[in-house]
Amino acid sequence: MDIRQIRLLHLRQRMRQENIKAYIIPTGDYHSSEYVSDYYKVREFYSGFTGSNGTLVVFDNEAGLFTDGRYFIQAERELDGSGIDLYRMGEEKVPTVFEYLESRVGQGMKLAGNGKVMSFSFAEEVQRVCEKTGCDFLTDINIAEELFENRPSRPCGRIRQLPIELTGETTAMKLSRVREELAKAGCDGMFLSRLDDIMWLFNIRGEDVPYNPVALSYAFLDHERAVLFIQNVSELQTDLFMIRNYDEVDVWLKNELSREQKIAVDPKSVSRFFYELISQHANAVKIQNPVMLLKAVKNETEIRNLREIYRKDSAAVIKFIYWLKKNIKNQAITEIDAVEYLHRKREEIDEFMGESFQTISAYRANAAMMHYEPVTERPVTVLAEGMLLVDSGGQYLGGTTDVTRTIVLGDISDEEKLHFTKVAAGMLRLSAAKFPEGCTGRNLDILARQPLWELGIDYKCGTGHGIGYMLNVHEGPQAVRWKPTDRSADGILKAGMLLSNEPGVYIENRYGIRTENVLLVREDEKTADGQFLSFETLTFVPIDLEAVDVEKFDERDKRLLNEYHRSVYENTSDLLTEEEAAWLREAVRPVV
Amino acid sequence: MDIRQIRLLHLRQRMRQENIKAYIIPTGDYHSSEYVSDYYKVREFYSGFTGSNGTLVVFDNEAGLFTDGRYFIQAERELDGSGIDLYRMGEEKVPTVFEYLESRVGQGMKLAGNGKVMSFSFAEEVQRVCEKTGCDFLTDINIAEELFENRPSRPCGRIRQLPIELTGETTAMKLSRVREELAKAGCDGMFLSRLDDIMWLFNIRGEDVPYNPVALSYAFLDHERAVLFIQNVSELQTDLFMIRNYDEVDVWLKNELSREQKIAVDPKSVSRFFYELISQHANAVKIQNPVMLLKAVKNETEIRNLREIYRKDSAAVIKFIYWLKKNIKNQAITEIDAVEYLHRKREEIDEFMGESFQTISAYRANAAMMHYEPVTERPVTVLAEGMLLVDSGGQYLGGTTDVTRTIVLGDISDEEKLHFTKVAAGMLRLSAAKFPEGCTGRNLDILARQPLWELGIDYKCGTGHGIGYMLNVHEGPQAVRWKPTDRSADGILKAGMLLSNEPGVYIENRYGIRTENVLLVREDEKTADGQFLSFETLTFVPIDLEAVDVEKFDERDKRLLNEYHRSVYENTSDLLTEEEAAWLREAVRPVV
Repeated sequence: MDIRQIRLLHLRQRMRQENIKAYIIPTGDYHSSEYVSDYYKVREFYSGFTGSNGTLVVFDNEAGLFTDGRYFIQAERELDGSGIDLYRMGEEKVPTVFEYLESRVGQGMKLAGNGKVMSFSFAEEVQRVCEKTGCDFLTDINIAEELFENRPSRPCGRIRQLPIELTGETTAMKLSRVREELAKAGCDGMFLSRLDDIMWLFNIRGEDVPYNPVALSYAFLDHERAVLFIQNVSELQTDLFMIRNYDEVDVWLKNELSREQKIAVDPKSVSRFFYELISQHANAVKIQNPVMLLKAVKNETEIRNLREIYRKDSAAVIKFIYWLKKNIKNQAITEIDAVEYLHRKREEIDEFMGESFQTISAYRANAAMMHYEPVTERPVTVLAEGMLLVDSGGQYLGGTTDVTRTIVLGDISDEEKLHFTKVAAGMLRLSAAKFPEGCTGRNLDILARQPLWELGIDYKCGTGHGIGYMLNVHEGPQAVRWKPTDRSADGILKAGMLLSNEPGVYIENRYGIRTENVLLVREDEKTADGQFLSFETLTFVPIDLEAVDVEKFDERDKRLLNEYHRSVYENTSDLLTEEEAAWLREAVRPVV
Repeated sequence: MDIRQIRLLHLRQRMRQENIKAYIIPTGDYHSSEYVSDYYKVREFYSGFTGSNGTLVVFDNEAGLFTDGRYFIQAERELDGSGIDLYRMGEEKVPTVFEYLESRVGQGMKLAGNGKVMSFSFAEEVQRVCEKTGCDFLTDINIAEELFENRPSRPCGRIRQLPIELTGETTAMKLSRVREELAKAGCDGMFLSRLDDIMWLFNIRGEDVPYNPVALSYAFLDHERAVLFIQNVSELQTDLFMIRNYDEVDVWLKNELSREQKIAVDPKSVSRFFYELISQHANAVKIQNPVMLLKAVKNETEIRNLREIYRKDSAAVIKFIYWLKKNIKNQAITEIDAVEYLHRKREEIDEFMGESFQTISAYRANAAMMHYEPVTERPVTVLAEGMLLVDSGGQYLGGTTDVTRTIVLGDISDEEKLHFTKVAAGMLRLSAAKFPEGCTGRNLDILARQPLWELGIDYKCGTGHGIGYMLNVHEGPQAVRWKPTDRSADGILKAGMLLSNEPGVYIENRYGIRTENVLLVREDEKTADGQFLSFETLTFVPIDLEAVDVEKFDERDKRLLNEYHRSVYENTSDLLTEEEAAWLREAVRPVV
């Protein structure tokens, strides 16, 4: 019997004992983190699904996993044998997790899940289902974690304080700006549980989440106090704020909050557990997280550092592409070899701290899975034909990077060329956008997609996401997508924000193409009609001309590609060997 | 003393008697109509402002008029001497009407207005201000209308029943589709007060509102009954539904509603008065108006009729442009002469019933006012230089039209040419869009605006609006705009919907340019990635090549213009005289 079926069997036995009809296991730690350490991989323990987004619902006689378009192909493969049904979120006629629950429960039944891993917003939706159907919703129960055998231990890495040369702004300044925003919203204080918000505010970094340089922590601030809750209280020295133990946050809040205080919480990130706790001991006020927005707008120090880091990171990717193209014909190279070589090139950069997410190195059909990750147990050899898609990024002292190139290794079909060319056109057109302040990514998304829409193709994911500074590779509130998924996708674009720009084509079982640059929003001219914005491209890596069919470009696309390629050479050639630079010069030759 | 100041004086005296701090006078009849007959022009009576959108708030010592970007220039002129301050809605630092109220009222004060002319949503916002500030809000008071001297009488025109050849769907069918939607929303019935919804549902048309062929009416339906409330009950013969007197609707609802019934109301269109009445006598449920969406999707009969009507309407506009260009040098022509000649050309069409809105005929600087209307008292002579902007449309048996052309009459500047060319490029690019189902106008708007944004120009209005069939020239839920104004602007585009496409450039005191075609949303290919949609252009009028600087076009823009111009000739030449057709052939010559 499949190990997951046995685990579900145990869970169902406990559910019966507790008279629970359905048990809900979202992805997540206690901080709404996108990536989580092994300690928190409860959903994976029961389902085998390793993607970064998915909710498992276990009933007595069935179970369903809900995930988004990036993971449809991967989830189908990974759930095989588990007995769990896959629900493809966003597809026609596929119920949401809430509709799924609603259709299967009735009067007097019990739904359950751990209130610490559920965001307030999520729990509220489940609550609504319960009210409609007459169910109860228990969130102070934790049987799925109790039955998690051989559970890894909770991570507890070192904490690093960042100097002003890296942050550009002191914690004192940041605290005062956040307090200003809270005052505007009529609040006396705020409770923070998102780890990247806390790292930004206190100018620290940690090692507790893979790829994200964050430490498990909570924070509280009001007009007098600022308190940071971390695991190793002795590691930090400061008199700017109080430091308390991570595990004492509940008790501290209970003792220190007062009924008169209006305490802001972000319903999208605070867990149900802490929302309830704060509601009981103070006046909880739901607001749009002001820290998220302040953090998203990079200051001039951060921007200066980012420009230099992106130049170096781009040079590492160029070195990698050069090596791959040069050796592919006379050397056996696997997808993982590619990952490792690229890692070594990044390691040569002084400021490098580690990858910003697990590198995607996907050969041919593997690239049709947007978030494919090569595994050592099943090595895939890359041959001198078709294309290799590599999506990777680094964490540096001075910035977080993210870049994708699809690299031609030998013969490719006319269709692959057509698709590659249209992806490049979309990427370049979005990068060249000029638009008035007030626009969101939703206004701009069509610039990247239109060349593909004209072919009847639509990639099932966003075009771009916000990017942190020495922080999470995905951050809000800005994003580029055409469909509203949640409100964060509609963050208004502000000068100083970073955005990825990564259109693609994914043909199941055949190939995948993605080209990704990172853009910095900058002020453009101010006219009688308002302040205009445009983008500065931070990424400098050639777009593979072997896959570009110039005939399929507009005149403007050609001009944009040539201008971009000129900047690639200008910004990276000083970081390359003579041999690499000579290769690059040819790789960025103007197209006509 | 200005007559409006005297009228406000009387109003303020009554306000003092009633102890009212602020009196609110929105634009509107009792049906949330965009255009209203003179009987309802209470706001105009006190302010002199004639625009179709604006809210007047009268305090004891000040008064403010709130209107949108289309009317900024016009309102400034019309309010002159009234003592009323203009508030430009949507501009930076300009308060909303609710913020304006909030900053000027306090504990125990009274706000008032007629609950019949306020939509539920609007009244709810005012209510919120009252709760925050401790005010009272009286809506069963009507002093502004009581003091309306020499008030015109309430209109009461004839009612026409439409044959199936015009509607393509019987009332029985429509009622059954609406009932289906109500059942899906868990409702037993619905109260309708928007006149165009009612006309559509009962396949009738009236004459009570200028430019909109609608009759003052209300309607109610549940699973057994359908009731139409009109003024002349004897005019209609049918056994499909009940007919009751317009003025008896309150009494009928009080008697016939039951507490057990869930009655749907559209909070955006139902007045506060009727929402309260229904809440008191049944279970009022706020839903998105299903009739609005059903009406917006035109059926095949309507589409067939529309194609023919747009062809004829376009030919009338071509005849007008030909006449204007031919005679401008040797004949004194005023803006109003132009309106009248165009009217005569439309009158020659058998199906013509009247204009669909007051024709805008705006010479040179007048065209910078988006909604300028020439007045007989101040005739403006059009000379053989600069440009004339003409925005007009007709109501026909078979459709409602809307078209704008900016016509070159003599020398124009290079800047005018540049702006004209970019407006044309934007209009053509939006018309050529192909996009997946699920898109709203917000996703597409940038296609029309981008050529202007690149010049640092942004027109302060939407790019397009929905259009009725033999009904209101503006209808929802679809629209094309980049900023969300209210939720109606985010209606998902469906095959069968009509949209105007009208980018422009407006330079205050100098000139205005607008080019407007009407588009029909049609199904395009269905691929693995979903159903795609694209547009069919219904309008066939040449874009003035005298103002096109071909150098400023992309290759694709040229191709799109030439293709469009070919279709103009093909679709209209049979409706023109030999002389007109010869002129048109030259007017649509291909550009290279």
